[in-house]
Amino acid sequence: MVERSEINMADVARRAGVSVATVSRAMRGLPGVGEATRARILEIADELAYVISPEASRLSGGQTGRVGVVVPATEKWFYGEMLAAIERRLREADLDVLLYQVSDAEVRGRFFRDLPTRRKVDGVVLIALPLPQHEVDRLDLLGVEVVVAGGRIKDFAHVEVDDRAIAATAVEHLVGLGHRRIAMIRATIYGDEHWAPDSQRLEGYLQGLADAGIPAREEYVVSVPFTPLDGATGAEELLALAEPPTAILCFSDEIAFGALQGARRSGHRVPEDVSIVGIDDHPLAAVMGLTTVRQDVAAQGEMAAEMILRRLAHLPVKDVVEPHELVIRASTAAPPT
Amino acid sequence: MVERSEINMADVARRAGVSVATVSRAMRGLPGVGEATRARILEIADELAYVISPEASRLSGGQTGRVGVVVPATEKWFYGEMLAAIERRLREADLDVLLYQVSDAEVRGRFFRDLPTRRKVDGVVLIALPLPQHEVDRLDLLGVEVVVAGGRIKDFAHVEVDDRAIAATAVEHLVGLGHRRIAMIRATIYGDEHWAPDSQRLEGYLQGLADAGIPAREEYVVSVPFTPLDGATGAEELLALAEPPTAILCFSDEIAFGALQGARRSGHRVPEDVSIVGIDDHPLAAVMGLTTVRQDVAAQGEMAAEMILRRLAHLPVKDVVEPHELVIRASTAAPPT
Repeated sequence: MVERSEINMADVARRAGVSVATVSRAMRGLPGVGEATRARILEIADELAYVISPEASRLSGGQTGRVGVVVPATEKWFYGEMLAAIERRLREADLDVLLYQVSDAEVRGRFFRDLPTRRKVDGVVLIALPLPQHEVDRLDLLGVEVVVAGGRIKDFAHVEVDDRAIAATAVEHLVGLGHRRIAMIRATIYGDEHWAPDSQRLEGYLQGLADAGIPAREEYVVSVPFTPLDGATGAEELLALAEPPTAILCFSDEIAFGALQGARRSGHRVPEDVSIVGIDDHPLAAVMGLTTVRQDVAAQGEMAAEMILRRLAHLPVKDVVEPHELVIRASTAAPPT
Repeated sequence: MVERSEINMADVARRAGVSVATVSRAMRGLPGVGEATRARILEIADELAYVISPEASRLSGGQTGRVGVVVPATEKWFYGEMLAAIERRLREADLDVLLYQVSDAEVRGRFFRDLPTRRKVDGVVLIALPLPQHEVDRLDLLGVEVVVAGGRIKDFAHVEVDDRAIAATAVEHLVGLGHRRIAMIRATIYGDEHWAPDSQRLEGYLQGLADAGIPAREEYVVSVPFTPLDGATGAEELLALAEPPTAILCFSDEIAFGALQGARRSGHRVPEDVSIVGIDDHPLAAVMGLTTVRQDVAAQGEMAAEMILRRLAHLPVKDVVEPHELVIRASTAAPPT
């Protein structure tokens, strides 16, 4: 038996009774090898569990066969869902995903200083990352194709949702139910930074109020770190105001799950005393009866993967805005009279 | 200005007024280069955003500088959290993570048939993956170091929790509150497969009942797909029995979040009418007031990364069982009288 670590193309060629060049062509799917021969070679290679060395097969073409995915935190549902969809689509195209997690501002700073993806990947997908300008400027030095998912950075190809319209839709729903005292819980990351989508949702919220002729109130907008527990604190803070809101729009469903509990903890019934709306349609939203504005995160991930594949094939790409949809459940109703 | 894609070691050498060999030694941290020279070289390289080609620097040593992480689904909290911790630790050690998602039985089958990680990674971490025996057998052909996290496979190095003890601890808590009619909601993946931890939790549940002298009842164990919505259905099914349970142990917190809602939806108060216990201590568990048995998923991820690093350094590793802890919150109380 051949020791597995020593199996190479020559072993396959010997067994198949063909040249190493023929094995190489057969395994890379190149023309010039008959179908029967190709089938026999693949069968023998499979028997020997021989896998063509990616370095050997790609270095000459200057391609790594890998795409880097840069993401703040895989444990947050939005990022995990997006990453899952990107990986599935790239895997279908026989590309590997190299994962770069930039979980805090320091790691992010190191990433953009060192640009560790250079020469390791053919392209990079950046997922919903808040970036200061000096780090944005470094992106040009990556020297590979860049696609942005869940937001936009400079003029890189991107797929996103219309965050202003999403927030305005939620406010419109609440206004339609009769609410006038509508608050918003924003979310921060990396200490006190706001994602671009968060700022755009704030604009949409303010626009929604303006459209309904409702003056904005400064005390009705609070910012909390992006965790459910902080969402609960945010809701408690709002509901403790002298004139508390009758409805709360939350940056995301995970913040809203916290807000639901914060409201209940402080003695408020949902939706009788206070209505709560999220954004996402997280897998728990349906079971929690949360009214939300749904965005299809997996579709955005697939689209981002598709865009980087087209870029790598030197095909043109168009920026994409994925649709959203109001999903009315049990957490919103008319305000108390 | 030098075009960035053409920057190479020769450019750095020219600017620094040293030989290419000196640049190479300086950038790889090898001895034989004075500190001042080294600092100047690194500064110039940084200016030019030159990054040493990983292929060029590693191929000779036979190392890829990459670790493959194989995981069923990054969008599930447990896997996202584990992956986050593994990536952080490997990044510190200057290793890249190549992500392989095996989201269904077909993709998993393809993974174990093709073993795509061969020659692409120095080692593989498998996260909590249910595997049929013929796929387990293929693992030996990977030809690289293997570490298993969140379970065990064959005699590969592994880090896990004591799933039997976890379930028995939960049952003991419920028995201590006076419950005798205790049910369990199990979870499946890949259609109807059970993770090894799920089977061990069933054993722990049965052992906990036996220890308390409570006969097991077949109708008190249901299996549902691993989603909160299915957790809700599972709870409704149990609570619709002629003699419904007064307490339900759930495979995980995500199942328990569903069960909480399923109980409420079918007119049962938690904990007055029915107690519910999860396993994990998911970030939402505290805010939902869920009693659970906490496991430290990030610690398991860090440990798995540590183990693969030791393996790659040819150091011995010991299997690890991480501790667990009962966290009592508002979802459990004495049974109704």
